[in-house]
Amino acid sequence: MRNIKLVIQYDGTNYSGWQIQPNRRTIQGSLEDALLKITKIQTRVIGAGRTDAKVHALAQVANFKTESAIPAEKFVSALNSVLPPDIRVIEASEEDENFHARFSARGKIYRYYVYSGKYLNVFWRNYVYYYPYPLDLDLMLEAAKFLEGTHDFRGLAAANSSTKNFIRTLKSVELKKEGEKLSLQFIGNGFLYNMVRITVGTLLEIGRKKIKPTVIKEIIETGNRSLAGPTVPAHGLFLVKVLYDDLL
Amino acid sequence: MRNIKLVIQYDGTNYSGWQIQPNRRTIQGSLEDALLKITKIQTRVIGAGRTDAKVHALAQVANFKTESAIPAEKFVSALNSVLPPDIRVIEASEEDENFHARFSARGKIYRYYVYSGKYLNVFWRNYVYYYPYPLDLDLMLEAAKFLEGTHDFRGLAAANSSTKNFIRTLKSVELKKEGEKLSLQFIGNGFLYNMVRITVGTLLEIGRKKIKPTVIKEIIETGNRSLAGPTVPAHGLFLVKVLYDDLL
Repeated sequence: MRNIKLVIQYDGTNYSGWQIQPNRRTIQGSLEDALLKITKIQTRVIGAGRTDAKVHALAQVANFKTESAIPAEKFVSALNSVLPPDIRVIEASEEDENFHARFSARGKIYRYYVYSGKYLNVFWRNYVYYYPYPLDLDLMLEAAKFLEGTHDFRGLAAANSSTKNFIRTLKSVELKKEGEKLSLQFIGNGFLYNMVRITVGTLLEIGRKKIKPTVIKEIIETGNRSLAGPTVPAHGLFLVKVLYDDLL
Repeated sequence: MRNIKLVIQYDGTNYSGWQIQPNRRTIQGSLEDALLKITKIQTRVIGAGRTDAKVHALAQVANFKTESAIPAEKFVSALNSVLPPDIRVIEASEEDENFHARFSARGKIYRYYVYSGKYLNVFWRNYVYYYPYPLDLDLMLEAAKFLEGTHDFRGLAAANSSTKNFIRTLKSVELKKEGEKLSLQFIGNGFLYNMVRITVGTLLEIGRKKIKPTVIKEIIETGNRSLAGPTVPAHGLFLVKVLYDDLL
C-alpha cells in the first residue's frame, strides 16, 4: 500500500471539527468523502491534530494508505476539484510506510488571535476573538515566560479521560501586537485538550490585571485548574504547522 | 428632523445586495430593522451605492432622518449591538439637512481582487476571484490608460433601463500585484451598472492576450458591448470609499 501525506488548509467556521461524527460536517469526513469520489474506495484519513469545531488550520497534516495509481502530487488538484471551497489540499507527497500524521509528529504550532478595536472588522469576525479591553502586554510577557519549558500542564487543560500524562514541553510562547490585533503563538511538542484556549484565557485575565503573572507559575506547580482563566472561543485558534523534525 | 450619516462595513457574502427586497436578506433591510429596534420607528436608510449580491463594502455611506434624541456617535455601538456580525457601523455623525448619501457623493472608489495561485486560500474564497492564468500586467496597464478620463462607458456596462447618460469620469485605474494577488482599483465620479466587473473582465482577457489593449479604446469609441470581456463574479468586488469632496 502507498502512503500519501497531505497538507491541508481549512476554514473551520462551518465544521464540527476535524474528527468524523455521524450527521455532522467534519474536516475528516469531507476528506474521506472526497477520496472516495476520486479512488472509489472508502479510505481512512489520519490527521495530526483533531481540531475542535470552528478551529482553523493553515497547514494541518494527514495521511492515508491507498492502492490508487494516482501520482502523489496529482491528489492536490484531484481532491480540490471535489472538496468544498473552505477546505484546500495545498501539498501531497508519497512517504514511506512508517509515516503517521499523528504519531510521527514531533510538535505543533498554534496561534490565537485577539482583537481589541472599537468594533470588530466584519472580515475578521470568524477568525479573531473580540476582546475590547486594554491589555498590559508586559504583564502577559512576564507570565508567558513561566509557560516555556517542560511542565505538568494539567491545570491549563480541560478534562479528557484518555490523557494520563500531562507533561508537555512548550518551546516558545510569542506575543505579537500589530495595531489592535494581538497574536499569541505557541510552539510545543504536544498540547493537552483545550490547553491553548485556557492558557490564552488566563493570559488575557493577566493582561487585564484581574490576576497576577505569577498565577501561571502557581497553576503549573499545583495543577489547580480553578486558578486559570476561562476557555476563550474556538474561532480565534489556528493550527499553523505540524512539525516532523525534532523540536529542541 | 435630524440627519444622521453612517459609514458602514459589510461582508456581502450572505446578502442579496444593498437594496431592500421582500423575503431577502439585504444590507439596507438589516440596517432598517436595526434602526427600528433602537428608535422604535420604521426609518428609510439611503445608501450611496446600491451594491449587488455578494459585493462587499469597506466604507459604504448611508444617511437617515430621525427625531430620536440618541447622540449621533452613539448610533455606532447601539446599531452594532443589534446588527448581525457581518455588518458593522464604523462611524456615525450628524449632518445638515441637505446631506444625501447618494446625491451628495462626488465619487467612489471600487477595488476588485483577482488571485492566480496554485490553489485558492480558503480564507479568501469569498473575497477574490480565482483566475489561475498567467497575466501580462504591462498589457493590462496599457489598456487601463485608455479608461482614464471622461468617456461614454456604455460599452462597458450592463443594460439598465433607468440610465440615460453614459458619460462618466474615471480619475484613475490602478493595478497592484502582491505575489499572486492582483488588485484593480477604480476612482471615478460615478459607475454604470456592472461597469467595474465588465471592465475587469475585459482587462483580464487583455492580460491573457485573448484581445489587444486597444480594444478598450474601440469599446469606448463605438459603445460596442460585444467587444468587451465577461462580467467577473461579484464576490471579488469591494466598495472602498465614497467621496464627498470634489474628485478632480
